[in-house]
Amino acid sequence: MAAGYFEAGKVPRASFELFVRELPPSRGYLVAAGLVSAVNYLENLHYTQDQIEYLRSLPALEGIAPGFFDEYLARVRFTGDMWAVPEGTPIFATEPLIRVTAPLAEAQLVETALLSVILFQTSVASKARRIAEAAAGRAVIEFGGRRAHGPEAALYAARAALLGGCQATSNLEAGCRFGVPVSGTMAHSWVMAHPDELTAFRRYMDVYGRRSVLLVDTYDCKAAVRLIGEAGLRPDGVRLDSGDLAGLSRDVRGELDAWGLTETKVLVSGDLDEHRVAELVASGAPIDGFGVGTSLTTVADAPALSGVYKLVEIERDGRMVPLMKLSDGKRTLPGGKQVWRMNDLTQNAQDVVGLAGELGPKGALPLMRQVMRSGISLEPKRSIEDLREFCLKAVGSLPVAVRRHSDPEVYPVVLSDELEQLTWKVRQALYDNRGKGFPEE
Amino acid sequence: MAAGYFEAGKVPRASFELFVRELPPSRGYLVAAGLVSAVNYLENLHYTQDQIEYLRSLPALEGIAPGFFDEYLARVRFTGDMWAVPEGTPIFATEPLIRVTAPLAEAQLVETALLSVILFQTSVASKARRIAEAAAGRAVIEFGGRRAHGPEAALYAARAALLGGCQATSNLEAGCRFGVPVSGTMAHSWVMAHPDELTAFRRYMDVYGRRSVLLVDTYDCKAAVRLIGEAGLRPDGVRLDSGDLAGLSRDVRGELDAWGLTETKVLVSGDLDEHRVAELVASGAPIDGFGVGTSLTTVADAPALSGVYKLVEIERDGRMVPLMKLSDGKRTLPGGKQVWRMNDLTQNAQDVVGLAGELGPKGALPLMRQVMRSGISLEPKRSIEDLREFCLKAVGSLPVAVRRHSDPEVYPVVLSDELEQLTWKVRQALYDNRGKGFPEE
Repeated sequence: MAAGYFEAGKVPRASFELFVRELPPSRGYLVAAGLVSAVNYLENLHYTQDQIEYLRSLPALEGIAPGFFDEYLARVRFTGDMWAVPEGTPIFATEPLIRVTAPLAEAQLVETALLSVILFQTSVASKARRIAEAAAGRAVIEFGGRRAHGPEAALYAARAALLGGCQATSNLEAGCRFGVPVSGTMAHSWVMAHPDELTAFRRYMDVYGRRSVLLVDTYDCKAAVRLIGEAGLRPDGVRLDSGDLAGLSRDVRGELDAWGLTETKVLVSGDLDEHRVAELVASGAPIDGFGVGTSLTTVADAPALSGVYKLVEIERDGRMVPLMKLSDGKRTLPGGKQVWRMNDLTQNAQDVVGLAGELGPKGALPLMRQVMRSGISLEPKRSIEDLREFCLKAVGSLPVAVRRHSDPEVYPVVLSDELEQLTWKVRQALYDNRGKGFPEE
Repeated sequence: MAAGYFEAGKVPRASFELFVRELPPSRGYLVAAGLVSAVNYLENLHYTQDQIEYLRSLPALEGIAPGFFDEYLARVRFTGDMWAVPEGTPIFATEPLIRVTAPLAEAQLVETALLSVILFQTSVASKARRIAEAAAGRAVIEFGGRRAHGPEAALYAARAALLGGCQATSNLEAGCRFGVPVSGTMAHSWVMAHPDELTAFRRYMDVYGRRSVLLVDTYDCKAAVRLIGEAGLRPDGVRLDSGDLAGLSRDVRGELDAWGLTETKVLVSGDLDEHRVAELVASGAPIDGFGVGTSLTTVADAPALSGVYKLVEIERDGRMVPLMKLSDGKRTLPGGKQVWRMNDLTQNAQDVVGLAGELGPKGALPLMRQVMRSGISLEPKRSIEDLREFCLKAVGSLPVAVRRHSDPEVYPVVLSDELEQLTWKVRQALYDNRGKGFPEE
């Protein structure tokens, strides 16, 4: 399409909005994430000579003028503006997470990358918030790198998990790149690689001292804790990774206490998600922290969001003309938009989606702010701790019924009068022209 | 753990095997993939100075001797051997996909990356094979980059999808990197960005000529095809992306034929998976090809495999000693293994998992072959077309009931007598030493 726009001569400016059509089942809200990656991607957009030569070699592109490759692709950079909801903000179906306004070809070239970056990180951050709420103050550690959709997915899942509410990740590269806390424990292989369990525990403590978390379920949990107690080892924690975690955590807690190891924490892992964590918490099991992997890192119950990136307005004769699409079940709302949140707890909470140019409801908070101007980031760098804190507070201000992990209530999102009227007007014009294929307003 | 092994002095060699504990529900087999990425990762393993300084700065590692950072990490390369099942081979639960034999610390350092690379690509290739079988000879195009878990996941999902049976991908970077066929069609935004549908179609055909695939569902499918017919355009195909695909494809086929456009193909997309594709094929809908996105690229019904990487043997006093783990529900089989396949169709098909040193059943095909020696790849580069062909044939030789997309039969995988005996012996020794924490055989 970019080649087509180039061929057509002057490329108009246009705006695209990225939003999620429907929340996955059991989700009452999503936590926006991935904006830093999106800005970074846009700031670095370029095509290498190898990529350009590859495109030139494609039979499908043989009709394209050489200028598209030599002038346009070789020099293209993202020169547009972007508006976005800040990372950590809870958002709902149909609300734009980002709006890109740029020359049409540029805005189009970045579609797939923006969608994959924003949707994936948003889905992980949302899942992490749920799991953190289920843990009710106990630590949650992101453990799922091995099941991620490749090493890059593991890295950004770790960041999103911390943003959503995890205390640490086992992904050292995430620690190195994003400055987030890392945490690890031994694997079963460490125990198996030593002549006996006690030797394995001793050697680990020689290296990590009081910070050690010892994995006690390789053969028999209680027996392993007895070995630790008899040897006078004082690890920071022990980890259970299999079996009846509620029952075993009680046994292990009892055995630790009997040896005077009252400060040693009990950590559990193994096929945990928000529901399992909530069950364990409700059972009163003496668990101090949860290691959560696959269900979080791959968002196993909802591995994709129904997110799309849709053209909402285009420049014609020097002004922006609102556009929409009518396909069955896939309608879009015309025009560049803003979202106002009204949840000061003194009234019924709701969001209003309106046009970007509106003033908005009195006293309501606009969620979207400009984050790039002419291809340059306006975003200050914020720590993951700050973002997590912001997220915790913002989600905490939503109605409890919306935050439920099963069968949540739908948070009310309404359209402003101006957006309603514009939608009606554009739709009517499209229907009037049905059969002529005329989308013009 | 690597620091711990370094601290302990001489590091023994050890073998780890990567396998899937259980197939996801509704899967009768998996298609091995990701080996090229795994070999590439191992050949390039190294730590940058920034990464090393980061690790040195971690409080948890403050007890580690400087030599671990300056000598070990700064110089470590993968020097081990790897055995693997070739890409495109159907495999079953408990069968090793790869075996890594290397100094223990090296073999341990690569665990997470190998798991994430092999499991993800295997799950996508497996899904692609299912969808390709459902399409029964019609083209399947991978379309899901926008919903992938980031751009890297999109890239490798595209490769795995082609390996498993797709004809092409919309991911241009995959075309550039892997030489796979690419295919694209216009988006709704192309139609919306033009003053009317006919202008949008004409301009697209000006650029792509006879190769054009025109998206006809932005407003009204039949009306759009009438515009195409009236204007005398002769596109390669039209695409439907919403609504009742079976019904619309008939309407659109009829309209195309009425205008003499009998060569123009009908392509469909929109929330397709193997079940939906099979339904459309069974309905007799006149569809020539399917664009499949989210369900394939994120493997939405089974986004993670229960794959693990387990220590199976370790060097002690100059010889390899087999090891296993007993944790409830997470047992492993000891020793380095081989898989023999017996499915020449003259007998009941089955696989035998035995020890790597065995001769194997007479006439049976050993699936694992050595792919790296002392850190160097032994693998010839094979084209994706070759791998897809190989996969098609190998899956085709499985019993039909195992290949069913719902409620498949379990393919028989048995242990060799030698592996049974070794497992019994190692387990018995562990039970005899229960409470002493002694894993030694």
